[in-house]
Order: sequence, then C-alpha cells, then structure tokens
Amino acid sequence: MTFIKRSIDATTAERAIAAAAEKATEMKIPMCIAIVDESGDLKAFRRMDGAPKLSVEISQNKAYTAACFGMATHAWYDFIKDDAPLLHGIPIQLEGGVVGAIGVSGGHYSHDMEVARAALAAIGAEAK
Amino acid sequence: MTFIKRSIDATTAERAIAAAAEKATEMKIPMCIAIVDESGDLKAFRRMDGAPKLSVEISQNKAYTAACFGMATHAWYDFIKDDAPLLHGIPIQLEGGVVGAIGVSGGHYSHDMEVARAALAAIGAEAK
Amino acid sequence: MTFIKRSIDATTAERAIAAAAEKATEMKIPMCIAIVDESGDLKAFRRMDGAPKLSVEISQNKAYTAACFGMATHAWYDFIKDDAPLLHGIPIQLEGGVVGAIGVSGGHYSHDMEVARAALAAIGAEAK
Amino acid sequence: MTFIKRSIDATTAERAIAAAAEKATEMKIPMCIAIVDESGDLKAFRRMDGAPKLSVEISQNKAYTAACFGMATHAWYDFIKDDAPLLHGIPIQLEGGVVGAIGVSGGHYSHDMEVARAALAAIGAEAK
Repeated sequence: MTFIKRSIDATTAERAIAAAAEKATEMKIPMCIAIVDESGDLKAFRRMDGAPKLSVEISQNKAYTAACFGMATHAWYDFIKDDAPLLHGIPIQLEGGVVGAIGVSGGHYSHDMEVARAALAAIGAEAK
Repeated sequence: MTFIKRSIDATTAERAIAAAAEKATEMKIPMCIAIVDESGDLKAFRRMDGAPKLSVEISQNKAYTAACFGMATHAWYDFIKDDAPLLHGIPIQLEGGVVGAIGVSGGHYSHDMEVARAALAAIGAEAK
Repeated sequence: MTFIKRSIDATTAERAIAAAAEKATEMKIPMCIAIVDESGDLKAFRRMDGAPKLSVEISQNKAYTAACFGMATHAWYDFIKDDAPLLHGIPIQLEGGVVGAIGVSGGHYSHDMEVARAALAAIGAEAK
Repeated sequence: MTFIKRSIDATTAERAIAAAAEKATEMKIPMCIAIVDESGDLKAFRRMDGAPKLSVEISQNKAYTAACFGMATHAWYDFIKDDAPLLHGIPIQLEGGVVGAIGVSGGHYSHDMEVARAALAAIGAEAK
C-alpha cells in the first residue's frame, strides 16, 4: 500500500554546503549553494557574502531541476546528462537512490560545477 | 554618490540556524529555519528532517516579511510587534541596524518564536 | 557579524534621470526611466509626458534585471553584455562596485540604450 | 466620439516629489514618495536614502488607490475621505479635475500625510 522514500538528511546537506563553500572560498568566488531533497523542496541553503542576487534564485532552480531529472528515466536525460550547461545542477545519489540534488551559482558554470562536485565528494555521493 | 547598507554575514547566519535547530531538536519538533538579509533575499536555510513541506515556504515568507517590517517605522509596527501571530518573523538587529531577519515554521507559533529567539540569543542580536 | 553593501543615493539617481529625460527630449521620444538600487528595489522613476503605458513596467523590469546581472560573474553575461536587446538595462558602477541599475523604455532599443548611456555619463558611471 | 483626459505632467510631478522630500528631510524621516497619473500608472518616484524597503511598495499602492478613489463617486468615499489611515494617499486636483495622486510611506501615517500635503501645496493642488 505504501512505499519508502529515501531523503538526504539535514546533517549531510549542511556538510555538503560547508564543503562547497570551502571550495568556492578557495576559488575566491562568492556563490549561492542550494540543496533540495528528493522531492525538490529546499533542504539547506547558503548565500556567501557578496554572492550575486541573481544566484539566489538560480542555485535553487538548478537544484530543483536536477532533483526532477534525477528521478527521471527519459531518454533525453541520458542525452544531456554529461553536458553540464544543459543540466546545471547535480542529483545526489546515496545508498542506492537519488535522495536530493545540489545547485550552485555565482561563477562560470564550470566553476559552479567544480564546487558542486566538491560538495558531492565530501559526502561520498557520486554524480549520477 | 552612494551610501552604505549593512548586511548579516554567512557565518553569523549559519550560527543562528545551528542554534535554532538545536533548540527545535530539544523540543522534538522538526522545523524549517530561514534567514534573509537586509533586503529580504534568502541568506541561509535549513529544513530539519521531518519538517512539514508547508513550512519550507512559510519560514521564508515570515523572514521576508520581518525584514521589510524591521526597517519600517510605522506606528502600527509598534502596535503589533509584541503580538507574535501578527508579525511571525523577527528582524535581526546587529551593530546598530536591522541586517536581516529570521523566520521559523513547523510548530505552534509560540514554539516557532521560541526557536527564533534562541537563534537571536546565540548571535547576540536583540529582537527589535 | 555583518558586511557592507554600497547603494546609489537619491541625489545621484535623480541626476541620472534628469540627464536621461533631457536626452530623450532632444530625441523627441517620450520615455520611462527607472533607477533601481543594488538589490533591485526601485530608487527613482520618471514617466515623461506621452510615454507609452507599457514602458512603465518594462523600464522597471529592465532595471531590475540589470541589477541582478550586474552583480553576476557568469561567463554568458560577458557574452551578451554588448548585445543590448538581450540585456536591455545597464548596471550602474560607482566607487568600485555595482550600486544600482538603469532601465529605459519608450523607443527602439537602440534609442533606449542611447538615453541610458547619457544618464550614466552624467553621473560619471561607466557601463560594466 | 472621444473625450479628453487631463493628466499631471512630469515637471509638476517632479516638483511635488522635491517638495515632499524636502519636508521629509526636515522631519528627519527617510520616505518613499510616489506620484501616479490619472490612470493610476506610476509617473514619478523617489526612495530617499534609508527609506524602508516596505515603503517602496506601500507608497505606490497608496498613490494607486488614491487615483482610483479620486475618480470614484461612491458614497463610501465620502465616508472615509477625511479619515487618512483608511485612504492613505491623496488624489491630486489641478485645473478642475483629478489628474493624479500621491502616496507617501516611511513614517507614522500622520507624518506621511504631512509630507503629502507639503507636496500638494508646492504645486498649488488642493486635496480633494
């Protein structure tokens, strides 16, 4: 009658954000980092001092979109999934499923992705 | 040509959220905690595990509204400012000005406010 | 605990609008001119007599968007920033930072941009 | 087949705003001042340095509402027209008709109204 959803917990989300912020600080680019849960709802967020206003929205949209795509099996996902600018955010895969997603905004998309990957590495999640 | 605005920094915002989450954990009520900056833009956010979906939006709206009211001097603000259900969020006053605001959602409003006040106490901010 | 944001002051905003209106009068095109601050909130506005109703909204949207983009460092901003129809408004850079933005509407976009640039010149701001 | 609408011109609107800002400066209360035309569309606007964010919207809403009420003949307008807190803004009557309206926000409503009246006096308009 029911089924189980696995969702990223707050501690892990904060750990991911801390690692992302550390990476962005190292790159000297103030960014916004958003983590959403498996349903696309905001789980944790940080706007680094000086991060552009636009990135407040964009980082959340990226994470939301990635959470949606993460659970999708559409063929075109396979088509775009290695093309970062098209996907922007990254689904977070833990314990065998997509439990959330991360969106980063503030720099060139290659910088944003580098920061997102640093966050995933810190929590032992591999990009799907 | 220009004038200065003072804004809550990311470290302080995270410290406020950590204190709020600790208080909410102690009360055994999973909550959402949102911190916005002096312009009402989201600065930091945490959804505790199990916090209701509705509180994701509500906590952010509360913080946004409080940031707006925090800078207002309308007489009716004085009238409602001690009546939590009417105001909902709390402006954050630091270094002589309103630099942001906090919104908490997940429990009865009196619980939400208790958590918000714990956050303010942790960063040495007094409710305006 | 806090950090500083720099914002365009009212005197400078009015000076920019006066210069824009003078330019538009010279071109015999009634326009709307909007100045927003660094957070995208309206700072000063003028609808010249006869300016189209639609331009009331459009000028403000242009300024808002430019304020957001002004603080962004996305590579695609560099790509579009010399292509007026894509960006529409212009961030205002003063004293080393983006402190606001201007949006003009009422004529062909090339006329709108000419008026916006006249405003920036009058306050010694360079287009970012 | 047609009829004439009389609308406040940009010069007069700017003169009203300058007088309002002077009065507010004298009262040491930073305010937002909005002038709309006879149709309720924004004609001129100024946010004084330090005026609360909330007043950006409120001043415009007040002016819009007053422009609507100014042209209305509903009995309840007569009922509320001397009760400032209910009406908030003031229609601008010039050359025999309502040609626009002013909305001021930033202080206690009695301060807001005092500033609005100073603006009307400066352009020789009497409150309807």
